[in-house]
Amino acid sequence: MTERTRIRRLPEKARSSRADLDAVLDAGKVAHVGFVHEGRPTTVPTACARDGERLLLHGSTASRLMRTLVDGVAVCAAVTVLDGLVLARSAFESSMHYRSAMVFGSASAVRDKVGALRAMSEAWMPGRWDTLRPPTAKELAATLVLELPLTEWSVKISDGDPDDPPEDLDAPVWAGVLPVVTGYGEPRPAPDLRHDPAVPAYLADWRP
Amino acid sequence: MTERTRIRRLPEKARSSRADLDAVLDAGKVAHVGFVHEGRPTTVPTACARDGERLLLHGSTASRLMRTLVDGVAVCAAVTVLDGLVLARSAFESSMHYRSAMVFGSASAVRDKVGALRAMSEAWMPGRWDTLRPPTAKELAATLVLELPLTEWSVKISDGDPDDPPEDLDAPVWAGVLPVVTGYGEPRPAPDLRHDPAVPAYLADWRP
Repeated sequence: MTERTRIRRLPEKARSSRADLDAVLDAGKVAHVGFVHEGRPTTVPTACARDGERLLLHGSTASRLMRTLVDGVAVCAAVTVLDGLVLARSAFESSMHYRSAMVFGSASAVRDKVGALRAMSEAWMPGRWDTLRPPTAKELAATLVLELPLTEWSVKISDGDPDDPPEDLDAPVWAGVLPVVTGYGEPRPAPDLRHDPAVPAYLADWRP
Repeated sequence: MTERTRIRRLPEKARSSRADLDAVLDAGKVAHVGFVHEGRPTTVPTACARDGERLLLHGSTASRLMRTLVDGVAVCAAVTVLDGLVLARSAFESSMHYRSAMVFGSASAVRDKVGALRAMSEAWMPGRWDTLRPPTAKELAATLVLELPLTEWSVKISDGDPDDPPEDLDAPVWAGVLPVVTGYGEPRPAPDLRHDPAVPAYLADWRP
């Protein structure tokens, strides 16, 4: 833990185990990457996936985000999952269930581009990579995958019941937790789908 | 539109109408606020709600984020909603459905704290504010609500079908869109709930 990653606000929600970090990063699909661009803060959402000791960030060689980041500027990547609403007896004590990770560092282009793309694909769409044709040289040249090492980070998890003060407990109001439930809906075939292939069985196991 | 908010990457996904901005901000519950803190980029997730011409950001007077932001430092607040996966015939063309907004500017403390808290509460938990006791003076003193004016912003929306090149269309693989579906699950009463109040009817209309 560094001074930068020490959780000052609501420290009881801080988690320090690497397993907690991995769980948050694996549950999130989008990282918000903050960096300084032309002297101003910029926050860009980008597809992400954890692959062992690194957070992969995916983009195009044409994107401003990727071109800025590949130069090794300092970044702070945040991954947040909203898990529910905490409905307390007062507005003040009402809050959220969430899992949130921040990773500090600087990113660099991966050396193993195909391996990194496969890892991202498997994180987002498990089982699909091997059913698709391999990337072409032109596609690989147009793709940039960055890696951010998981060395300096913090994790915060809020998952408790409402924490109302004793004087509020008799309020005639329902209190509790309203969980957020996320899943995938009915697959919608592409209008130009040919040969009527079946919806792949592996889709049934995917979770957003 | 300023040079900073012009969408350079995939400009066909850019939206310039204020109605699109409002729709994205209203669909998102969490903003990732990027700013420079002690010379380094920092990205902090925070509860947000649009209220007319401003984006409200809610926190504690004890939080580092809020204390830094209230000084009027430059921020970039990003709100992103993941709507689905686009499963193309190749990994390269596979992508996401998303709605994403970036708001640039500097935040300041709201003058009308109770009004702003009510607006945030109604955005997150419509109908509940009037059933709760009013905030106390002590609670108000411990709460900071910031407003970020909606003056400089950009919006990007990706909602199309897979866009495979002609030579991939005969690949023997299913392609289409897998929508992300988000809702609230079964309300879970607080363990210290007294008097067995009914789950409020207004919960049925809430959407995350």
